[in-house]
Amino acid sequence: MQIVNNISEIQEWCREKKLEGKKIGLVPTMGYLHEGHLSLVREARRDCDIVVVSIFVNPAQFGAGEDYEVYPRNMERDCALLEREMVDLVFAPEVKEMYPAGYQTYVEVFGQISNKMCGASRPGHFRGVCTVVSKLFNICQPDIAYFGQKDAQQVMVLEKMVRELNFPLKIVRVPIVREEDGLAMSSRNVYLDQQQRQEALVLYKALKSAEENITQGERDTRKIKDSIEKMIKGCPQADVDYIEISDAADLADIDEIRGQVLIALAVRFGNTRLIDNLIVEV
Amino acid sequence: MQIVNNISEIQEWCREKKLEGKKIGLVPTMGYLHEGHLSLVREARRDCDIVVVSIFVNPAQFGAGEDYEVYPRNMERDCALLEREMVDLVFAPEVKEMYPAGYQTYVEVFGQISNKMCGASRPGHFRGVCTVVSKLFNICQPDIAYFGQKDAQQVMVLEKMVRELNFPLKIVRVPIVREEDGLAMSSRNVYLDQQQRQEALVLYKALKSAEENITQGERDTRKIKDSIEKMIKGCPQADVDYIEISDAADLADIDEIRGQVLIALAVRFGNTRLIDNLIVEV
Repeated sequence: MQIVNNISEIQEWCREKKLEGKKIGLVPTMGYLHEGHLSLVREARRDCDIVVVSIFVNPAQFGAGEDYEVYPRNMERDCALLEREMVDLVFAPEVKEMYPAGYQTYVEVFGQISNKMCGASRPGHFRGVCTVVSKLFNICQPDIAYFGQKDAQQVMVLEKMVRELNFPLKIVRVPIVREEDGLAMSSRNVYLDQQQRQEALVLYKALKSAEENITQGERDTRKIKDSIEKMIKGCPQADVDYIEISDAADLADIDEIRGQVLIALAVRFGNTRLIDNLIVEV
Repeated sequence: MQIVNNISEIQEWCREKKLEGKKIGLVPTMGYLHEGHLSLVREARRDCDIVVVSIFVNPAQFGAGEDYEVYPRNMERDCALLEREMVDLVFAPEVKEMYPAGYQTYVEVFGQISNKMCGASRPGHFRGVCTVVSKLFNICQPDIAYFGQKDAQQVMVLEKMVRELNFPLKIVRVPIVREEDGLAMSSRNVYLDQQQRQEALVLYKALKSAEENITQGERDTRKIKDSIEKMIKGCPQADVDYIEISDAADLADIDEIRGQVLIALAVRFGNTRLIDNLIVEV
């Protein structure tokens, strides 16, 4: 497994592989890998001739006061895990390689799909995501790029970006991987203390309870949101950032459950902000 | 010569050519072709295995009240000219093919390089240019893209965009082509009436006179701009939009001529806005 820090080196390497007719799969990550990431890697390994994993904690997608500085990093462990998954190449650039002095080019998807939910709580976040992912696409020239359904809004924004900017590639969404007790895997779970870790189970419980309500016939999104909120507020340390029920195709606001809907949550436990989501179809 | 209107068709065609190891040259145009465009095409034909010319009057780069609706178009004549230049493929999409309903993704280069000059006179112009050119790059996957030095700021913005978003291609700048009397070729010259056409010669005359001043030792950009302005104001129909002398590498403002400088003008004659420029090195 090669580890490359230099853009022109990996770009040239990928160009050669493309010329040889190889199918390239890209798994963009911020490192500190867990089973969620590894499920993306395994799917890429199954579909593609070449698997590239990028590890880059992207400053452009963190706002002021967010956890960029303290975001967990462990390059050595990450590379050991990826080597076991038969990854061909790890791209792990320095910040100044990706954003040299005077950097000023950004890609942005406007509108509701990027403005609500995490876009509202984290201004500039999706602009940072779209910009770094555009760069990674141009650098690695993948045929398929893999993203986790855990970041549901992110993958929807990126699908729209790929479609609208005509990137010559396909995005594959990979299902959420959960701990045995239901907590969605996240690099940020490491921030939680014991009580927060216990309380954090409420996210998935509230989502499953909402799904159950819908199965039983509830169609009023306001009522479903209220009951989610009530459950979360039962946890002393939980602080709701948002609870949204939207059209799963375009994140349009909906008053009534119909077709495929995305139920998405963001909740803070102390300084740690966790997200989770569930797609329900009626 | 093929003429294609459909994005997925040309994208697949270009993908196949790349897999065959062909070098693709792209010449993005808004059509109504003149010798300036054809010089780009000839350079592409000389360097590349496959030459693709796009013809698309891009609404995203026109502001409200600009000449999008009346911009001259002549697809039949353009295709006849390109056929003679041995172009392989013309990509001529409809607006709704490039910007389907609900389109919301944009690429933008921020900062002085895109804010001053045409960026100041035409808000949103370079965002429209960067967006459509990003789309064309993703669709046609060129190894080299050709742009005219006539639109000096445009090519600088695009070079910065390619560098910063890591597009896997090279931009080639092609020199300005002029009419025998010195007027820079432009599709918009057709708007000029006889007197305006005569007065429009002042752009190049003023640039050459500024160059001559510099050759004779003048280094004060303020004085050079004043003398350009004076010349242009000698034309009854001319209305100066901007006169700028900037660092030719990054468009930084300069007080004193040093190294390579770009002298750039935009002047209106009635409703017609013409631009011209000259690079001078001391």
